[in-house]
Amino acid sequence: MVGRRSLKGDYCPSARSLDVIGDWWSLLIVRDAFDGLTRFGEFEKSLGIAKNILSDRLRTLVSRGILELVPAREGGIRQEYRLTEMGRDLFPVMVALRQWGERYLFGPQEQRSSLVERETGMPVRLDIRAQNGRPIGPDDTMILKVPSQE
Amino acid sequence: MVGRRSLKGDYCPSARSLDVIGDWWSLLIVRDAFDGLTRFGEFEKSLGIAKNILSDRLRTLVSRGILELVPAREGGIRQEYRLTEMGRDLFPVMVALRQWGERYLFGPQEQRSSLVERETGMPVRLDIRAQNGRPIGPDDTMILKVPSQE
Repeated sequence: MVGRRSLKGDYCPSARSLDVIGDWWSLLIVRDAFDGLTRFGEFEKSLGIAKNILSDRLRTLVSRGILELVPAREGGIRQEYRLTEMGRDLFPVMVALRQWGERYLFGPQEQRSSLVERETGMPVRLDIRAQNGRPIGPDDTMILKVPSQE
Repeated sequence: MVGRRSLKGDYCPSARSLDVIGDWWSLLIVRDAFDGLTRFGEFEKSLGIAKNILSDRLRTLVSRGILELVPAREGGIRQEYRLTEMGRDLFPVMVALRQWGERYLFGPQEQRSSLVERETGMPVRLDIRAQNGRPIGPDDTMILKVPSQE
């Protein structure tokens, strides 16, 4: 990627996260894994992605601890890709992306998939709150920078 | 980007969001805008990004309605980049990315910037809940797909 530099050592956790998952395909693979996809061929079909790119992204996601290769549930020698705990903890990122997309990127009549609570079929809520439970927005927050190390 | 296809028409809101902001630089620019940066030179310095790439990404963010060019607060002819309402609504995405990074991408002693409530200096919370307020995780949810249009 032109001009890309690593943010591995950045003090900002958002920057490090983007360094690890800030690739368009990686998050789509993670989304599909949340949807229950586990096999190379399933991801390939879902994403319409070239085999070599998919293979590269899956390898990277495994090496970063987001996916793991485990024996397939039905036995045999086949292996499948599953989200690790680290990968499953990307759930809030996926929910936040989804809600923003729902709000801004669909026309009122346009069909969309939706994320609902399994038990009730009702939409899921995502809230940003202060420690005392008060809902807050960006203006209520600030970034505490670390002192620079001279 | 090799193999990239547009997801503009995808039924999945997460996919559409990634289509619009799933670029490594775009979200870093948005992060800096949340931090109060407004000028080309400020973004350039913060991100260590080449002028032509920054210029391209800023133009794209403006054309997609995430940033807007407005007259500078101190007057004169200079303009500055500010988050629109659509851009500010990316706040939960940034918070979710930050929290995941904090959890997984820093050593215990490593310095990091943190997002706190301005009033109390306490960390911000992000919760995923059912409509009745119960905290829920990925296993408590499902995707409702739209029927395919034959």
